[in-house]
Amino acid sequence: MLLASALMMLPPMLVDLWYRNADWLAFALAGAISLLGGGLLVWRNAGGLRHGLTLRQAFLLTPTSWIAVAGVGALPFWLAEYGSVSGNLANAVFESVSGITATGATVMSGLDHAPPGMLLWRAILQWMGGIGIIASAIAILPALGIGGMQLFRTESSDRSEKALPRVRQVVLVIGLTYLGLTILAALSFWLLGMQPFDAAAHAMTTVSTGGFSTSDRSFGAWEANGIQWVATAFMLAGAVPFVLYVRMLAGDAKALWDSQVRTMLTMLSVVAIALGAWLFLSGQYGLEHAFRHAAFNVVSVVTTTGFASQDYSLWGNGVVGLFFILTFVGGCTGSTSGGIKIFRFEILAIMLRGHFRRLLNPNGVFPRTYAGRQVEDGVINSVVAFMAVFFICYGVLTICLMAFGLDFMTSASGAATALANVGPGLGVEIGPVGNFEAIPAGAKWLLSAAMLLGRLELFTILILFLPRFWRE
Amino acid sequence: MLLASALMMLPPMLVDLWYRNADWLAFALAGAISLLGGGLLVWRNAGGLRHGLTLRQAFLLTPTSWIAVAGVGALPFWLAEYGSVSGNLANAVFESVSGITATGATVMSGLDHAPPGMLLWRAILQWMGGIGIIASAIAILPALGIGGMQLFRTESSDRSEKALPRVRQVVLVIGLTYLGLTILAALSFWLLGMQPFDAAAHAMTTVSTGGFSTSDRSFGAWEANGIQWVATAFMLAGAVPFVLYVRMLAGDAKALWDSQVRTMLTMLSVVAIALGAWLFLSGQYGLEHAFRHAAFNVVSVVTTTGFASQDYSLWGNGVVGLFFILTFVGGCTGSTSGGIKIFRFEILAIMLRGHFRRLLNPNGVFPRTYAGRQVEDGVINSVVAFMAVFFICYGVLTICLMAFGLDFMTSASGAATALANVGPGLGVEIGPVGNFEAIPAGAKWLLSAAMLLGRLELFTILILFLPRFWRE
Repeated sequence: MLLASALMMLPPMLVDLWYRNADWLAFALAGAISLLGGGLLVWRNAGGLRHGLTLRQAFLLTPTSWIAVAGVGALPFWLAEYGSVSGNLANAVFESVSGITATGATVMSGLDHAPPGMLLWRAILQWMGGIGIIASAIAILPALGIGGMQLFRTESSDRSEKALPRVRQVVLVIGLTYLGLTILAALSFWLLGMQPFDAAAHAMTTVSTGGFSTSDRSFGAWEANGIQWVATAFMLAGAVPFVLYVRMLAGDAKALWDSQVRTMLTMLSVVAIALGAWLFLSGQYGLEHAFRHAAFNVVSVVTTTGFASQDYSLWGNGVVGLFFILTFVGGCTGSTSGGIKIFRFEILAIMLRGHFRRLLNPNGVFPRTYAGRQVEDGVINSVVAFMAVFFICYGVLTICLMAFGLDFMTSASGAATALANVGPGLGVEIGPVGNFEAIPAGAKWLLSAAMLLGRLELFTILILFLPRFWRE
Repeated sequence: MLLASALMMLPPMLVDLWYRNADWLAFALAGAISLLGGGLLVWRNAGGLRHGLTLRQAFLLTPTSWIAVAGVGALPFWLAEYGSVSGNLANAVFESVSGITATGATVMSGLDHAPPGMLLWRAILQWMGGIGIIASAIAILPALGIGGMQLFRTESSDRSEKALPRVRQVVLVIGLTYLGLTILAALSFWLLGMQPFDAAAHAMTTVSTGGFSTSDRSFGAWEANGIQWVATAFMLAGAVPFVLYVRMLAGDAKALWDSQVRTMLTMLSVVAIALGAWLFLSGQYGLEHAFRHAAFNVVSVVTTTGFASQDYSLWGNGVVGLFFILTFVGGCTGSTSGGIKIFRFEILAIMLRGHFRRLLNPNGVFPRTYAGRQVEDGVINSVVAFMAVFFICYGVLTICLMAFGLDFMTSASGAATALANVGPGLGVEIGPVGNFEAIPAGAKWLLSAAMLLGRLELFTILILFLPRFWRE
C-alpha cells in the first residue's frame, strides 16, 4: 500500500512540475519516503504471506495499513508551501485522513487558487480510499464478522485458498468498474462545461463519495447544463454495492435491483421530493432549483459524499434537523459510502418488526428473512452491537469536542460527520460553506481518529484496545 | 384511577379555601368531573375484572388510564385563574402530563408567588405519578415483556390468580415505603429550614423524582444547613428499585446492594467527583460548593428528577455536553426514575462484551449472566429493541421540534428531557433556569406526548399504532 501511495504521488508531482510549482519537491520527497518504507517492508517480509493471516493478524493489519497510508498521505501537505496544512501536522494529518477515508471535511480554504498538485493529491487520496474501502468490505470485513457484514460472506470472501483466485478476479473487475465509472464521470463533467482538471478531480471525489472539491463553493461553482444532476447520479453510482456491478457485467441484468439499493433509492426519493416540494412551496427556490438542490444535497449527505450545491443550513431549522439525522444514514455496504449503512437499518427494521409481533404473541415464531434468506441471530446481534458502539463513540466524541470549547451544534454535527465520513457538519463554523480550519488542534486529532474509526467500521480499531486481544 | 384523582384534588381545594383563594372552585369542579367519570366507569364495569385481562386489554388499559388521569389532572390548571395555564389547553395539558409522568418540565413562572392550591396540585400529580410508575414497573410492564423488563418477572409479577394476593401485599408495602420516605423527606426539609408547605411539596416531588418546585429558582432557593445534600440523598432513594426496600424490610439487610444500584452509585460517584474536582480546580466554586452542586445536579439529572441548584449550563461547553448525555441515562428500573435506565446499560454492556469476545473467538461459547442468572436472548433483544426505538423516537422528535422553529440545542435537549422524563433541557430557553412557556403550542403537544411515551416505556403506546394490534 505504501508502494501504491508512492506511485500515486507521481501525478501531482508531474502536474506541479508542469506548472513550475515548487511543491513538486514535496511530492517527490513524500514519494521517496513512501517508496523506502514500502520497499523495506516488502524486503523484510518477502514470502511471509504464504502462510495466510490469522484472525488477529487480519485485525491488526487493517487499521495499521490505513494509518500508514494516511501518514505518508499527510507528508505532501505538511511539506508543501501552501495553505493551512503547510508545516502544521494536525492540519496535514486531518486533511490526509479526511482524504483517504473519503470523508471530505477540509481545513483548507482558497481552493480556487490552490496549486494543482495539491488539489490533485486531495482527489487521488479520496479515490484510493474509495477503492480501498470497497476491497475491505468485500475481502476483509465480512470474514472478520464486523457489524453484521458476515451477511455478505459469500464464496468470494471465503478465506480458503481455493477461493483466493476468485477474490482476486472479483476485485480486479471491481477495480476496472471503479476506473470506468471515474472516467465516465470525468468525461461527463468535462462535456458539461468543467475545465478538464476540475472534471478529473471531481470525478475522483464523486465516484469515491469523498467530496473534496477544487472550489470553496464546492459544486455550487458549477451549475449549468444539468451538471449537478449528473453529479447526483454519479454519487449514487458510488454508493451502490460494487459486487452488483460485477454481477451485472456477468449477465445478471437485474442485479442492481438489490434490496439495499431499492431501500436507499426509495428513502432518498421520498426525502428529496418532500424537501424539494417544501423548498418550492415555501418560495425559497423555483421549481427546477428546488428539486435539484434538494436531490443533490440529500444524496450528497446520505451517500456520505459531502459536496454542497447550496448552503442548506439556511433552509430553516427543520431542514437542519433533517440533515443532521441524514448524516448518520450512509449508503450501501460494499460501496464507497460510510455511515451506519442501509442494510443495517434493514436488519434493524426486521428485528423490530419481529419484536413488536412477539409482544403481541409471546409464544409465536416469526421467521426473519432478508433478501429471501433466513437472518441468523448472529447477524442481528452484530448489527445491533455496531449501532450501539457507533452511538456510544458518537456520544463520547461529542462531549470531548465540547470540552475543547466547541458549541453544541458544531460538536454534535462534527462528531456525526466525522464518524459517518460525510464531510461538512452544521452550524456557521463547519457547515456546508465553512471548513474545519479554525477549530482547535486537539479537536482535529480527535476528528481524524473518528474518521478512521468510522471508515473501518469501528470494531477493527476498537478491538485493538482490548487487553484480551494482546493477551491470548 | 379517576376516583383516586378526584380524592387527590381535595387537599389543594381545602388549602385554597383556607387561604381564601378563588381557585378552590377549579379543584372542586375538576374533582366533581373526575368523580363522575370514575363513578360511571365503575358502575358500567362492575364485576368485569373477575375474568382477568388479556394481553391486548393490558396493553390498551395502561396508556388509556395514564391519559385519563393526565386529562383530569389538567382541568384544575385550565379552570384556575392563575398563570400561563389558565384557559390555555396546551399549557394546562403540558403541566399536567409533566406532573403525572414525574418529568418536571414546567410552563409556569412566578412560582414563588403562585397560589398554594396550584403548587400543591403540581406536587401531588408528581407524587401520584411516582407511585403509579413503580406499580406499573412491578405489576404490568414485566408481564407485557416491555424493553427487557421480563428480567424482573418474578413470582410477584406473575399473572396467575394465586399470585395476586402477593402482588397486592408487595404493592401495599411499597406504597407504605413510598409514603414513609415522603414523610421523612418532608420532616428533614422542614427541620433544615424550609417552610412546612414548601417542605411537603418538595418532599413529594423529590421522592417521586419529579422535580416541580415551589420556587422559580428550584432548589437554588434553599441552600443552608446542607439541605441540598439531604435532597440529593432523597432523589437517590427515589431512584432505587422499590422492591429492594420490601426485601430489606423483610429482613434481607443486603438487598439494597443490588447490581443496578451499585452500577448507578458507582457511575454517579465517578461523574460527580470528576465534575466537582473540575469545578473547584477551574476556580468556579469553593470546595464544598463545587462538590455539592456537582453531586446535586448530576444526581438530579440522572435520577430524572430535574431540580437545579445552580445554572449548570454556565459551567462550560464540556459540562453542557456531559449533562446532555446524562439526560438519557435514567435511574433504576422499578423506581420512580425515567430514562433508558441503568439495567439496560448493564445488559447492553453484557451483550457488547460477548460480541467483542466472539469477534476474537468466532466459535467460542460465552455465557452471559446478570446478577448471577443466565441472561436469555429474549431479554437482550428486548433491551436492544427498546434502545433502538428510543433513539428513533428521539431523532423524529428532534426534527419535529426543529420544524416548529426551535433551535438545535433546544430541540435536541427538549426531546431528550421529555422522553427521559428529566425536566429541564439545555440552552437559554428551556435550560435549568428557564421554562417551556415560550415555545410554540404545537411543540408543547408533541413534548406532552413524548413525556407519556417515555414514561410508559415506549412500547405500551407504540403498539397501539400497529394495525396488527387491532386486527387480530
